[in-house]
Amino acid sequence: MQKGLFITFEGNDGSGKTTISQMAYEKLKEAGYPVIYTREPGGIDIAEQIRKVILDPKNTAMDARCEALLYAASRRQHLVEKVLPALDEKKIVLCDRFVDSSLVYQGIARGIGVDEVMQINEFAIEGHMPDATIFLDVDLETGLARVANRGNMDRLDAEGMAFHEMVAKGYATIKEKYADRMHIVDANKEMDDVLTQTITTLLEIITPYV
Amino acid sequence: MQKGLFITFEGNDGSGKTTISQMAYEKLKEAGYPVIYTREPGGIDIAEQIRKVILDPKNTAMDARCEALLYAASRRQHLVEKVLPALDEKKIVLCDRFVDSSLVYQGIARGIGVDEVMQINEFAIEGHMPDATIFLDVDLETGLARVANRGNMDRLDAEGMAFHEMVAKGYATIKEKYADRMHIVDANKEMDDVLTQTITTLLEIITPYV
Repeated sequence: MQKGLFITFEGNDGSGKTTISQMAYEKLKEAGYPVIYTREPGGIDIAEQIRKVILDPKNTAMDARCEALLYAASRRQHLVEKVLPALDEKKIVLCDRFVDSSLVYQGIARGIGVDEVMQINEFAIEGHMPDATIFLDVDLETGLARVANRGNMDRLDAEGMAFHEMVAKGYATIKEKYADRMHIVDANKEMDDVLTQTITTLLEIITPYV
Repeated sequence: MQKGLFITFEGNDGSGKTTISQMAYEKLKEAGYPVIYTREPGGIDIAEQIRKVILDPKNTAMDARCEALLYAASRRQHLVEKVLPALDEKKIVLCDRFVDSSLVYQGIARGIGVDEVMQINEFAIEGHMPDATIFLDVDLETGLARVANRGNMDRLDAEGMAFHEMVAKGYATIKEKYADRMHIVDANKEMDDVLTQTITTLLEIITPYV
């Protein structure tokens, strides 16, 4: 492999993103691929401190642009301290959520605008966009039913139905805008099926590079 | 007065910015002007939490772009919660440091670039640039001698000489770039003299509006 490979996972709430990406990571590791798994803030101390400010349920007065800047700051530190060093060591980096999530949540659902949110994220990532993105595509109803079953809701999960609809619309927009790097997996199916689709897709992405 | 007036104070380390701006505020208040005094994070809870992350001396691994994004986030929240409501009430808002400080410290001294740092700040402030800026102009040597006398040094004060020289160069650049709104006060003089100059300048700015 000439260089590392940066692969992100995106998808609506309840798409199974976190579970599926972790399971897929385990499978690739067992198969001997030089893979690491992360998600922001990823154990990076500064990024953890920032994330604590964002997710504190007491911070109801937080302005949407302040939130977007904090996500970009946390992303920057995680990228510099964890993702880029791993790519330099020619690792395959699997990352649960990245810039696309900010475009959807802050850009579209919170109404700031995709281009404006992309601008501060470009400042944060300096061109280090993912090589590929696994998009776990789930219908709004199916996804929300899964979230409701989980029980533990943070500040974002507790938003109203209109917000979740905006997120779903946002993901549809982003899926189209970045079609070139998006690899769609049907996440409405049973877990086993979604996992199989995901691993097949990952191997298609990775194989030309190894 | 048709609307509020947003006046910021800028200047090199040791220019007397904080002392002078507070004393000038007291004088204007005594004279009956509808004035408020603030500085980021300005007692805004979310902005205070962000500033704590920035200034924590343990956070030596903090990347310059992460730092710049955090300053912009703190600025946004302070602007929305404190500055804009006061301007809506037709107050004169005196603010110790604002966007110019980020252009100097992150844009120039840390080497990110003025235009790039301006871009994330434009996202943060949405056009709410100061109506006027009092620029307390002090020579590098005079300023540093004052800082050394103060004794309490945070993470920024403790930077090396090369950094302070970059800051001085940065302020010179910004002073020229935004000449239209800059009101220069010679801050090499004794405190009493600097204060008198500052108040005279403030009255020249304010009088046409009241």
